[in-house]
Amino acid sequence: MSKEITARSVDYSQWYNDLVIKGQLADYSAVRGCMVIKPYGYTLWENMRDVLDRRFKETGHVNAYFPLFVPRSLFEAEEKNAEGFAKECAVVTHYRLKADPDNKGKLIVDPESKLEEELIVRPTSEAIIWNTYKGWIQSYRDLPLLINQWANVVRWEMRTRLFLRTAEFLWQEGHTAHATKQEALVEVKKMLDVYAEFAENYMALPVIKGVKTASERFAGAEDTYCIEALMQDGKALQAGTSHFLGQNFAKAFDVKFSDKENKLDYVWATSWGVSTRLIGGLVMAHSDDEGLILPPKIAPLQVVIVPIYKGDEQKGLIDNKVTEIMQQLKDLGIRVKYDDSENARPGWKFAQYEMQGVPVRLAIGARDLENNVIEVARRDTKEKKSVEMNGIAFYIQTLLDEIQLNMFNKAKQYRDEHITKVDSWDEFVSVLDNKAGFVSAHWDGTAETEEKIKEQTKATIRCIPLDNEQEAGTCILTGKPSTQRVLFARAY
Amino acid sequence: MSKEITARSVDYSQWYNDLVIKGQLADYSAVRGCMVIKPYGYTLWENMRDVLDRRFKETGHVNAYFPLFVPRSLFEAEEKNAEGFAKECAVVTHYRLKADPDNKGKLIVDPESKLEEELIVRPTSEAIIWNTYKGWIQSYRDLPLLINQWANVVRWEMRTRLFLRTAEFLWQEGHTAHATKQEALVEVKKMLDVYAEFAENYMALPVIKGVKTASERFAGAEDTYCIEALMQDGKALQAGTSHFLGQNFAKAFDVKFSDKENKLDYVWATSWGVSTRLIGGLVMAHSDDEGLILPPKIAPLQVVIVPIYKGDEQKGLIDNKVTEIMQQLKDLGIRVKYDDSENARPGWKFAQYEMQGVPVRLAIGARDLENNVIEVARRDTKEKKSVEMNGIAFYIQTLLDEIQLNMFNKAKQYRDEHITKVDSWDEFVSVLDNKAGFVSAHWDGTAETEEKIKEQTKATIRCIPLDNEQEAGTCILTGKPSTQRVLFARAY
Repeated sequence: MSKEITARSVDYSQWYNDLVIKGQLADYSAVRGCMVIKPYGYTLWENMRDVLDRRFKETGHVNAYFPLFVPRSLFEAEEKNAEGFAKECAVVTHYRLKADPDNKGKLIVDPESKLEEELIVRPTSEAIIWNTYKGWIQSYRDLPLLINQWANVVRWEMRTRLFLRTAEFLWQEGHTAHATKQEALVEVKKMLDVYAEFAENYMALPVIKGVKTASERFAGAEDTYCIEALMQDGKALQAGTSHFLGQNFAKAFDVKFSDKENKLDYVWATSWGVSTRLIGGLVMAHSDDEGLILPPKIAPLQVVIVPIYKGDEQKGLIDNKVTEIMQQLKDLGIRVKYDDSENARPGWKFAQYEMQGVPVRLAIGARDLENNVIEVARRDTKEKKSVEMNGIAFYIQTLLDEIQLNMFNKAKQYRDEHITKVDSWDEFVSVLDNKAGFVSAHWDGTAETEEKIKEQTKATIRCIPLDNEQEAGTCILTGKPSTQRVLFARAY
Repeated sequence: MSKEITARSVDYSQWYNDLVIKGQLADYSAVRGCMVIKPYGYTLWENMRDVLDRRFKETGHVNAYFPLFVPRSLFEAEEKNAEGFAKECAVVTHYRLKADPDNKGKLIVDPESKLEEELIVRPTSEAIIWNTYKGWIQSYRDLPLLINQWANVVRWEMRTRLFLRTAEFLWQEGHTAHATKQEALVEVKKMLDVYAEFAENYMALPVIKGVKTASERFAGAEDTYCIEALMQDGKALQAGTSHFLGQNFAKAFDVKFSDKENKLDYVWATSWGVSTRLIGGLVMAHSDDEGLILPPKIAPLQVVIVPIYKGDEQKGLIDNKVTEIMQQLKDLGIRVKYDDSENARPGWKFAQYEMQGVPVRLAIGARDLENNVIEVARRDTKEKKSVEMNGIAFYIQTLLDEIQLNMFNKAKQYRDEHITKVDSWDEFVSVLDNKAGFVSAHWDGTAETEEKIKEQTKATIRCIPLDNEQEAGTCILTGKPSTQRVLFARAY
């Protein structure tokens, strides 16, 4: 099996596609730019979603559901937001098909079913949600509104990549309304922290928290905060964003509240989201040329057990032992599968589970039974060893924690080694081309310079890190004075 | 508060709308026929979804996700299915907006972004899924495929009702593929049983399992099985369907598999679904003129505690006691809220939680503390009594079970009393007009007669019950011979 995966060194992009397809995470579909999320990939998403959903609820949020469609007149109400998404909108214009009179068995759009006002398939839901909030908010007593939605959204991308950039994707979008600017800002950072904590502790993905420059902001936001991760090819990936929307949407949809002194003011807003794109980042951050490597905390399957036997008698003895071990593992809440299917030989199964990134593989044969041991193979380091059967469940529980930590440390070491400080244009270009990763450099703070750097190198400012030190310097491109370094990178 | 709800006897339809809106389940939206599911309603849906999802997984199914859009050419492949849904399809024809040259700040559809092939927003996913299955199924080893999807779908209904009939709704759709007809039939009935068990044990909604007549079948199915429930106005509601699709979709999408003898055959299919429509049924089956009555097992909130006090000292003592009770209830897994907000008086809170159908309300005052008792009010019967504080958590746990059972029994008694056997046309019409409910009558088995009965009475054949007795008789309309009774009703 593993031979079928293109090596990273040969073609990184093909390696990624191979992992997603052969790792059974997703498949292409008949719809341009849309993918099918296969059961294995969807279970991974469910595990991620469940953790995030719990965190959202722990931080006081509730879920709701808003319409898929946004009438054009609402869509265009917040002009910057509309401008930002107008070029990638799927538009519903008709509501009926009819039999094609010239072509039996075929259908055509019924021209008489043309809508008076077109409906946009939501690329994001600020417009429809703030139009709804108008009816829900009158007084400070109605605030804050802390609502999240799990939904599908559509952005008509010209170049798509499985998980990383698809026309339709799944995500969550939080939309909150507050009485004060201060409270909204606290919310924006709180949710950024929730994302960072999730990425690092569950996805084993080290991230840098920062704020975007004006030109990289979400359309309609006053400030966009983000978490940025680094992939194994040295390119950055924006893994989540949290936006301070100011009063822009409240003004566009006329959402005012009366405060305790009965004074009317516009409501303050935030929105924040992560999507199935995270799965793309997960794949690229950890996997190797043999397949996926999934962090135990969110892996669909944490442990797989493969029997090695000749004949029914051996099989029966192994089955008995495995039943016992399975129960011990399940009692500890470990997701385990016993693969005793007869369709494939053990070696094939080993390769398959390696490809799918199952953190721990156990193999048990007749000799192992005699010696009261079991073979334990970990996916991340590929170490194999024989372990005493007694206490095996606790051993594995500890091992899963160790794998989780090891994956994070490895990714963090790589990431830390790939943040390079440079102080000249030549160095900047050379690091981007030869070493890649984040480049920490001085910038004169203008959109013009940012754009020029992007044109010349394809690198963008990923963020201004939140914990940035102030430091005098000169812009790598223009030589103008600068007060701090920012992080550049080529990015997904 | 309760005065705001229209009484059932005055206007049943308005009563229903009042419950949904004022009970905080959902709201109208700016999009024709689409609704907003509010946090309280969405939590109810989450609770329902979680139970069903567990049941699906227990019966061997896994979740996946397929595209929102169906290209027209795939949509029309299974002709009956296409014909059935063609008249209610939202159609995406363009993928871009642009600035309106004549109207600053406004947008128009960019005519240059017209799609070569239109995309249908899925009204159901058989087409896109079977087109995908074609690539996944080669051999009997790939079968069965047991996949479920939680998704939004769109059917452009002309007359919409909150939850009961909306242009967009949330649902799950199971799509399974099997090697034999027999196995597919077993699946169809297994999932019908899952639905029936869920409706009765969780929603407290008694249902009749049956099979639809040919004219009431799902478009593209060979047989449609259903569960039918009865609302308080005597109208029936189809609460879930499970379809035997035969080889129709396999043939339309050319999905063949080789069996153990290497012989090629088309794959057998089923699909089954329930939707947010169930919430409409839940509301109409149980509620009264004071508001919603929600079954404890799926209620967003099972218990609410309201303090009644004068001054901080009393409040402090009550708080201490309530903290203790809350912990005991939470330890038992009971969903409880302490409403000590100062925005509203206890009487207002009582009415509000009554309106929202919280199964148990506890009220506690200074006198109660002295006597070591607490006032327990149950929503279903509106009984109130003073209960010893000691052992209160277990008392409430038992009470919740009792409420759940009582709600089911009450609904079942009403339902059973509203199944009326009739043997003549006059009786048939009279029962429909005066008593309503299910009418059990002989029918000659023809679609023609079925249609005439529908035209004349608006009653349809809800189902042929699975446990039907064979009994010779004559059709109520035509007098022709019949071998069994079927269940008629006016329906939602």
